[in-house]
Amino acid sequence: MKIPEYIDVEAAHERIRSVIHKTPVFTCSALNKKTKAELYFKCENFQRVGAFKFRGASNAVMQLTEEEKQKGVATHSSGNHGAALALAAKLNNVPSTIVVPINAPTIKKEAISEFGGRIMICEPTLKDREDTLQIVVDQEDATVIHPYNNFNVIAGQGTCAKEFLEEVSNLDIVMTPVGGGGLLAGTALSVKAISPKTKVIAAEPKNADDAYRSFKDGVLYPSVNPQTIADGLLTSVGEINFEIIKEKVDDIMTVSEESIVDAMRMIWERMNIIIEPSSAVPLAAVLENEAIFAGKKVGIILTGGNLNLEKLPFKSKFPTS
Amino acid sequence: MKIPEYIDVEAAHERIRSVIHKTPVFTCSALNKKTKAELYFKCENFQRVGAFKFRGASNAVMQLTEEEKQKGVATHSSGNHGAALALAAKLNNVPSTIVVPINAPTIKKEAISEFGGRIMICEPTLKDREDTLQIVVDQEDATVIHPYNNFNVIAGQGTCAKEFLEEVSNLDIVMTPVGGGGLLAGTALSVKAISPKTKVIAAEPKNADDAYRSFKDGVLYPSVNPQTIADGLLTSVGEINFEIIKEKVDDIMTVSEESIVDAMRMIWERMNIIIEPSSAVPLAAVLENEAIFAGKKVGIILTGGNLNLEKLPFKSKFPTS
Repeated sequence: MKIPEYIDVEAAHERIRSVIHKTPVFTCSALNKKTKAELYFKCENFQRVGAFKFRGASNAVMQLTEEEKQKGVATHSSGNHGAALALAAKLNNVPSTIVVPINAPTIKKEAISEFGGRIMICEPTLKDREDTLQIVVDQEDATVIHPYNNFNVIAGQGTCAKEFLEEVSNLDIVMTPVGGGGLLAGTALSVKAISPKTKVIAAEPKNADDAYRSFKDGVLYPSVNPQTIADGLLTSVGEINFEIIKEKVDDIMTVSEESIVDAMRMIWERMNIIIEPSSAVPLAAVLENEAIFAGKKVGIILTGGNLNLEKLPFKSKFPTS
Repeated sequence: MKIPEYIDVEAAHERIRSVIHKTPVFTCSALNKKTKAELYFKCENFQRVGAFKFRGASNAVMQLTEEEKQKGVATHSSGNHGAALALAAKLNNVPSTIVVPINAPTIKKEAISEFGGRIMICEPTLKDREDTLQIVVDQEDATVIHPYNNFNVIAGQGTCAKEFLEEVSNLDIVMTPVGGGGLLAGTALSVKAISPKTKVIAAEPKNADDAYRSFKDGVLYPSVNPQTIADGLLTSVGEINFEIIKEKVDDIMTVSEESIVDAMRMIWERMNIIIEPSSAVPLAAVLENEAIFAGKKVGIILTGGNLNLEKLPFKSKFPTS
């Protein structure tokens, strides 16, 4: 198993710099007051396709051989990786096929299609996703780009924390959510290389705590029946990812669903930016653990902003007039 | 009637520069593709209190005499001006009283209160708003800061377009919505001084078209029973504002309610930022008038981002699963 290092993140950054957005870092005095911490938010919800996933997908596509490029790329995805891979492929004149479960939101399918990806619909089971993907691979000899358990994807995701630390110095802590671990592993590579004294703390929904349990026991557990509003974090941690996480991550915290919704609402209301629920998980951990974060300079990566506007989780706290 | 000029905008900018945010300018390739124009968005939804109103309120408060500061400021407002004045006053150690109609959203009252403003509740009629405000003035000799029909407020709002044109050059058109006309008048002062060949085009809901009718006829009409989702644009144009608008604005366009919601949704979904309905009105005009804007370099001021997340106007376009 080949594990990426920080030098691979640096190479990825050179490779993808001209196609990615250098996303802005926002601060919010109301949230600083609320948390008693000094928070910096790296806004990957403003990345192309609306999520950090475009970094890793671009880094993977740009390293294909000419022959591989002609045959195309494929993946299965119900979320941001599918759209990210479709756009990264299109920009490199590479055909892409995205296997999408039939119950995926229409908006996700539209995004994939708009970015030039071919959609193949499958049943919403992991088995049918993998079987359908295998058909594409068999027929077209396409290269499968896994959403996170992939050397080049991890190196690409690491460019986000690299940009972040190059812009904001002396962070005490850098936080990301953890699902498959692509962003977390890449972030840990960059942080520990650039600023070894900065802690890397991941946050995960209590209802999808495979990364937390795996990290505590040092054994990779699969995600079993996760039920969380943070639908980008349902996946199990990848093997390559776990090797890096075990070695370089300082802690993983779990948070309640209620805290996730509260944190998401605070960011929407106070910062006037749209983030998806998964992006709110680190702020939820800050809210649940004031004593740990108070007085600290904390960098949080806001991972993405894609969600269905018709199904928002905000309920009125007051009688509506 | 004393009418502000660009020199007053310049003085305002020097005065308030250290307390306002220099808001970012965003672009969006998906919206450029959709409109066939080259759009630049000045994000005043990221201004303090979440709206451009903080500029004018600050400029007004900072010019009070010491005696006036001790007596305090007052206004009536169901919207962003109340919160903006409360914060501007607080930052200058000035007491503030905001007269708020009893049916104003709780979130607006919370904002005013959080920024240190004293709230006086009144009935939701213009008469009771003015009567209640008069009580404050009589009792405390407070200075009334009108939300838009005010020399210093207009000069303060003009700093937004000044920043915009200093950052983005060669704009063919600058657009704002128009309600009372504070932002529009200030914008026209700056644009015509900095870049005389740039057109200033305002946009207004068809269902609240007093500015449009006044502009076309050269006579100031009041707003009669306006019914629009763009609740920041219900007010009638002010007299000082109208003098500037008549002279310096190139056109006012009206748009349908449906276009406003479409435009708002596009900005939410494609740019991942939160704007209030009033802010979407200029993009709605671009969408309704493709032939006029195609191929043009267009600057749009996104005026604010304060709205009730529980009452969003987005209806599903698809059967929800």
